[in-house]
Amino acid sequence: MDGDLMSYSQLIEKMLAGDKRSCAKLITAVENDPEKAEKIIREIHQYTGKAHIIGITGPPGAGKSTLTDKIVKKLISQGNKVAVIAVDPTSPYSGGSILGDRIRMQDLALNPDVFIRSMGTRGYLGGLSKYTKNALKILDAAGYNHIIIETVGVGQSEVDVVKIADTIVMVMVPGLGDDIQSIKAGIMEIGDIFVINKSDLFGADRTALEVNMMLDLTMEMDRRPPVVKVTAVKNEGIDDLVNEIKEHLNYLKESRKLEERRKANIKLEVLELMEEQLRKIAISHTDSENKLEDEVIEILNKNKNAYEVRDKLLKGMGTHLRESL
Amino acid sequence: MDGDLMSYSQLIEKMLAGDKRSCAKLITAVENDPEKAEKIIREIHQYTGKAHIIGITGPPGAGKSTLTDKIVKKLISQGNKVAVIAVDPTSPYSGGSILGDRIRMQDLALNPDVFIRSMGTRGYLGGLSKYTKNALKILDAAGYNHIIIETVGVGQSEVDVVKIADTIVMVMVPGLGDDIQSIKAGIMEIGDIFVINKSDLFGADRTALEVNMMLDLTMEMDRRPPVVKVTAVKNEGIDDLVNEIKEHLNYLKESRKLEERRKANIKLEVLELMEEQLRKIAISHTDSENKLEDEVIEILNKNKNAYEVRDKLLKGMGTHLRESL
Repeated sequence: MDGDLMSYSQLIEKMLAGDKRSCAKLITAVENDPEKAEKIIREIHQYTGKAHIIGITGPPGAGKSTLTDKIVKKLISQGNKVAVIAVDPTSPYSGGSILGDRIRMQDLALNPDVFIRSMGTRGYLGGLSKYTKNALKILDAAGYNHIIIETVGVGQSEVDVVKIADTIVMVMVPGLGDDIQSIKAGIMEIGDIFVINKSDLFGADRTALEVNMMLDLTMEMDRRPPVVKVTAVKNEGIDDLVNEIKEHLNYLKESRKLEERRKANIKLEVLELMEEQLRKIAISHTDSENKLEDEVIEILNKNKNAYEVRDKLLKGMGTHLRESL
Repeated sequence: MDGDLMSYSQLIEKMLAGDKRSCAKLITAVENDPEKAEKIIREIHQYTGKAHIIGITGPPGAGKSTLTDKIVKKLISQGNKVAVIAVDPTSPYSGGSILGDRIRMQDLALNPDVFIRSMGTRGYLGGLSKYTKNALKILDAAGYNHIIIETVGVGQSEVDVVKIADTIVMVMVPGLGDDIQSIKAGIMEIGDIFVINKSDLFGADRTALEVNMMLDLTMEMDRRPPVVKVTAVKNEGIDDLVNEIKEHLNYLKESRKLEERRKANIKLEVLELMEEQLRKIAISHTDSENKLEDEVIEILNKNKNAYEVRDKLLKGMGTHLRESL
C-alpha cells in the first residue's frame, strides 16, 4: 500500500465511517513516511480533538497490560469506543517486543469498538512522541472517544509519550519498598491518578500509605491526585479507577486546564514541524556542491572548528532559505 | 563556578598541563550550558584528535564495569593515560544510577593517569551523544590517549553514544542462550571486537561458537571481528583483548577508515550544531509578538492545521533569519 493522495482520501473516508482496517492503514502510513503523514494529518485535523487521552505508565511488572485490559472492558461496557496504543520498548539487541503478554489482549482486538496498536520505540528516537501524536489524531478522528497510551515508564522517550495524555495514570505495586522514595524525582509530578495494583498482595497498604504521604508532602499541587487500590487480575477496583479517570477529565475541563494542555501540545508540535523542515533545508543546502565535505576536511586538519563552520554555512543558507520557503 | 571566558581560558591552560580538577570542571561546564560548551570547544579543538576512543557495550549483567576496570589497569601499566566515560542509564523513576557497582572503580579514580566520569542519560535525550562528544574532546585535549566509553547497550541513545568510538567492543556472556540469534539485528554490525566474558562459566564455548558462526554468516564485512574469551574478574584474557583493541586501531589507520569515521562524525556534528542554531532562531522568531500563540488558537479551533501554521511561520522567518545570522 503506497497509494497517492487520492487513495488516502478514500481511506480517510472509510476510516471516518468506522472502518478499522482503513484506520490501521492510515496509522502505518503516518509511521513510515513524514510526507504521507503531512497529507493525512492536514485532511483529518478538523475531525480531531474529541477523545479523552489516557496515559498508563509504571515500572515493568506493575501489571499495566492487565490493568489496561480491564479498563478497556469497563469503558466499552459503558458504550464507549476505545483505542489502545501500546508503546513497546524494543531493545536494539532483540528487535522484538519484550512484552509478550500483550497477546492477552487479542480477544479485545476482535471487538468492533476496540482498536489496539503496538508501536515499537525503535527507529523513532527523538520522534516517538511525534508518531504517537499522529496515530492519536487518526484514532481521535475515527471516533474512539477514549484513547489509552500504555507505556513502560523507563526511558525519557516513554515519559515524553505519556505526557501527551490528558490524564496520566501511574501504576505501582507493593514491593517497591524502599524505592518508593526514589520514585519521586521526575515522575511523581506527572501522575494525575495513582494506582496501587496487586492490592491483594502483602504490603499493599504500606505502599498506598507511602504514596499518600509523598503526595501530601508535595507542594504546589492544584489538585491532589487520588490513590486507587485495584487488583486488576481479579477485576477489583476497576470501577473506582474508571470513575476517577472521568472525574479527572471533568476537573480538566472545568479548570480550563484541558485547553491549556492541548495548546501547549499544539505549540510543541508546530515547533517540531518547523525544526524538521529547517533541518531538511540545512541538509540540502550543505549537501549541494560538497560545501560540507570541504569544510569537514578543514575541521579534521584543525584549521577550523565545528562552530566556525556552522556559522559560515548558516550565513550561506540565507539565500537558499528564501528560495526554499 | 560559573566564570567568564577568561576563567575558562585559565581552566583550559591548567587542563592542558594535566590538571584533573580543571578537566572535570570543564566537562561539567560543557554538560550544563551549550554556550559555555561553544566557548570551550572553540578553544580546545586544535588540541584534539589524538586519542583512541574505545566503546564498550553489552547487555546488563555482562560484567562491563569489571572488564573496563581491567582494561584500564592494563593500559596504564603500559604507560598510557586513560579516561573512562561511563554512561549510566538513569531511570526517570529513580533519578539515580542503577549501576552501583561503578563504585568499584574508585581506587582507579585516584590514579593520576586515570580519569573517570559518569554521565547520566537523564536530561540529555536526543543530545546525550553531543555532550559525550564534548567531554571526549576535553579528555582528548587533556592528553588521555585512550578514552573508554562504557555503556549498557539498551536504548537507541546508548547505541548512538557508543558509535562515536573508533573501536567498539561488544561484551557477551554465556547464558544468553537462544537470544544470541536475536542479538544480530542492529547491534552485531557495529561490533569491532566481540568479547565473551565470564568464560569460566558453563556454556562459554557454545556462546563463543555461536558468535563465531554468526560472524561467519554475516556478509559484507571488510574485516572479520575477532572473538576474545576473557574472565574479567580473574584478569584472564585481558592481555589478548588489549592487543586486539590496538590491532583494530592499526587496521583503522592503515585502511584509512579512521579518517572516514572521524569525517563522518565531524559532518554529523556540524549538522547538529546547525540544527541547534536554527531551532533557537525559530523559537525566538515565533515567540516574538505572540505569533505562535495566536496560531495555536487557530489550530485548536480547527481553522488551521499545524502544517499550514508551520509554512506560514517559516515564510515569516526569512527576514528574521537574514538578520540573525
